[in-house]
Amino acid sequence: MRRFSASKVIYKFSRRNEPAYSVNDGERVLIETKDCFSGKIKSSKTLFEDIPMDIVNPATGPIEVKGMSGGDTLCVSIEEIRLGKWGVTVCSPELGILCSEVRKSRTKLMEIRGNKAKFSDDLELDPHVGVIGVSPVEGEFPTFHPGDYGGNLDTVEVREGSKVYLPTFVDGAMVALGDVHAAMGDGEVCGTGIETSAEITTSLSKATELSLKRPMIETPTEWISYAAAKSLDEAAKLATEDLVRFISNARGIDFEEAYLLASVGANLKISQVVDPLMAAKMSISKRYL
Amino acid sequence: MRRFSASKVIYKFSRRNEPAYSVNDGERVLIETKDCFSGKIKSSKTLFEDIPMDIVNPATGPIEVKGMSGGDTLCVSIEEIRLGKWGVTVCSPELGILCSEVRKSRTKLMEIRGNKAKFSDDLELDPHVGVIGVSPVEGEFPTFHPGDYGGNLDTVEVREGSKVYLPTFVDGAMVALGDVHAAMGDGEVCGTGIETSAEITTSLSKATELSLKRPMIETPTEWISYAAAKSLDEAAKLATEDLVRFISNARGIDFEEAYLLASVGANLKISQVVDPLMAAKMSISKRYL
Repeated sequence: MRRFSASKVIYKFSRRNEPAYSVNDGERVLIETKDCFSGKIKSSKTLFEDIPMDIVNPATGPIEVKGMSGGDTLCVSIEEIRLGKWGVTVCSPELGILCSEVRKSRTKLMEIRGNKAKFSDDLELDPHVGVIGVSPVEGEFPTFHPGDYGGNLDTVEVREGSKVYLPTFVDGAMVALGDVHAAMGDGEVCGTGIETSAEITTSLSKATELSLKRPMIETPTEWISYAAAKSLDEAAKLATEDLVRFISNARGIDFEEAYLLASVGANLKISQVVDPLMAAKMSISKRYL
Repeated sequence: MRRFSASKVIYKFSRRNEPAYSVNDGERVLIETKDCFSGKIKSSKTLFEDIPMDIVNPATGPIEVKGMSGGDTLCVSIEEIRLGKWGVTVCSPELGILCSEVRKSRTKLMEIRGNKAKFSDDLELDPHVGVIGVSPVEGEFPTFHPGDYGGNLDTVEVREGSKVYLPTFVDGAMVALGDVHAAMGDGEVCGTGIETSAEITTSLSKATELSLKRPMIETPTEWISYAAAKSLDEAAKLATEDLVRFISNARGIDFEEAYLLASVGANLKISQVVDPLMAAKMSISKRYL
């Protein structure tokens, strides 16, 4: 298995990105990732305001997936996430859903041991990958933005055993990964999870069975739609629409029947409310498909 | 145990509501509830448009809780929910987050047996009470609205074993309950769960340990804040603010520390996106309190 170093990172998803690495369709690789602050926070004296936004969320890559073209679907299978030894969480008057109520920035550093982090008491970990994205159809987006091309998904279900499906817009997809969280609650309300460096073992392959407008996530037990938009209300509507159409196709039932099933058996949820766009997700158990 | 019949219902939460029933502080009672369509849908030919909105969500009561005054907190402990034998789910171009995409109204009636309903395949049930509210501080709100006084909570965690805490605004609280769902997904995206009549065994008591602006829910394992607002973004902010302040008080830690803990260990979620106000909730495990 090849190892891709975090010495090659991007801070923007752009159609103009050139490949740093290249894999064959289906290749399994180990990807090293830096924490979301590019490793610059080593003490609780370093605050969010001390970190320039243009080095936030370094994403290792871009990785060209050979044989892929725009209009295809990329499958990023998350096989293993090994966390770094230290995690960092910050709050700031410039960050998060309650920013106006934060009187003073604070940085918390904590040791990560086994599946726990010493937050105040032991906090149970739930490692997941924050950023997975491909080159977008147009424009240039900082890696702390989410979008139809993926990017800063900040979705806890992107954990070991899950697959992230992304629509692709350029030859080779140009996927990049980063921003691993040792833990995060849905919403990521203060703007950070437990941010850490990591090593991600992943397989990158072309998915022929799915055609997507926006990301979808498959876990061992669920299918999840994902949408980012200017408001949570708008994101929620898009995530619902995507999941209802997915259910309709998967079961061969009409829109109304899929919509009724979604209302009683699927869950509309929040990914995060703190990035430049808000993100919603909707999950349905595979036993209903 | 006394039984309160569903022959006495309200369709509006109002300061002017007079008591239909009266209980002592802490009394355990059985409350009969009609389904959200007042039992008017008995065939799949009866559509949402056939039901006048002024008979939607009948709530049994109001029940005066003796000894309570405005400014107190009411605890509604849900001890048992017995479902009716039939459930109904509807979609309509006039209802739900994807209303503009519904071509034709549809009504689905299904038998409820054990913990399953015959939806298409068997659907697992998760019974909960949709409407629990008290007389509001002012105004008059149809029982299909949610608000700071409770009302149409549409929150799946209001199930057996949970306690709903509501701020009260008038003498006797004047609580009313209805709109039981045999199942509903977070979001209730098409506008209905599996709607059914029910018998709810509940204890109604004054909670002296909590002072609230908005409802909170306690389950055996979690505390959950709840907020309804014009947009999901606004509701999410209020639910976060309430839970962070609750964590701060419960643990005796400052706002910033509680905010950091909420971001990595609490979950911001959606109750529903289909009522006249949107509702968000935020949960934290009791092991972090």
